[in-house]
Amino acid sequence: MEGESLARLVELLQARCLERGVRVAAAESCTGGLIAKLITDVPGCSGYFCGGVVSYSNEVKTSLLAVSEEQLAAHGAVSAQVARSMAVGALNATRADFAVAVTGVSGPGGGSPGKPVGLTYVAVADSLGAEVRRFVWAGDRAANREASARAAILLLLERVSGGAASETR
Amino acid sequence: MEGESLARLVELLQARCLERGVRVAAAESCTGGLIAKLITDVPGCSGYFCGGVVSYSNEVKTSLLAVSEEQLAAHGAVSAQVARSMAVGALNATRADFAVAVTGVSGPGGGSPGKPVGLTYVAVADSLGAEVRRFVWAGDRAANREASARAAILLLLERVSGGAASETR
Repeated sequence: MEGESLARLVELLQARCLERGVRVAAAESCTGGLIAKLITDVPGCSGYFCGGVVSYSNEVKTSLLAVSEEQLAAHGAVSAQVARSMAVGALNATRADFAVAVTGVSGPGGGSPGKPVGLTYVAVADSLGAEVRRFVWAGDRAANREASARAAILLLLERVSGGAASETR
Repeated sequence: MEGESLARLVELLQARCLERGVRVAAAESCTGGLIAKLITDVPGCSGYFCGGVVSYSNEVKTSLLAVSEEQLAAHGAVSAQVARSMAVGALNATRADFAVAVTGVSGPGGGSPGKPVGLTYVAVADSLGAEVRRFVWAGDRAANREASARAAILLLLERVSGGAASETR
């Protein structure tokens, strides 16, 4: 799916979800609504998209996604643990069948030696469990956000399809 | 502010909010994350943007924004009452100082004689109360969503400024 545009991947996701009768939600930190915006660009998305949470602040991560303050303190907002909790929290809050979550450092600010600009975790959760992937993008803010959205849509597509729908397929 | 681009209006909102030390949240139905995406396009937005909810389904409106099922049944999701409840719900859920909410029929489907494509309610809430505005856009899905986002940013700007910052100023 390497050559597919992001808009085309979203259309594929919609077709796959409608075909399988499953519903999807999103919890977004660094992408800040971009994934939901891309999904809702497509007419008919209400057939599978529940919505989700833009958890830009830690307070919203705890209040709306039930991420624990202990976890945020121990691992930081940009961590595999928090990405997983965000996905599980979105799944529970929306009653979707699949939830995707993204947390990362889009830049230009916010980077640190341990967590550089571009570091991003993408998680997906369903009733069977959750998985997380780690990326380090090398673009500017807009490019990093788009790369994160793309990784999220691909991970959702793969999970909804119940197998490998990854870039390497 | 009629001639300003939407991106420029978002920059003005950010400058105004940072200057006044206030925080903002968004609850989006028909715009589906577009407002949050536009706000988070701008570096430094974490200084004032808490995040929010993309409440595409009615279930998310009730579970995350505390919109009542009775209200949804009585007035429909696209109504002044639900727009107001979404804004108040986002304010309470995020602890922001100001919350904006949008619900509408972006099209191409979903219209009805009483609620045509383009009908949109935009609400803003703060600790002093809430107000709602009604619009009927005449564009396609993308244009209607952008017009709704613009109206939401303008209403926020006006409310944060504590006076008229509307198109007619």
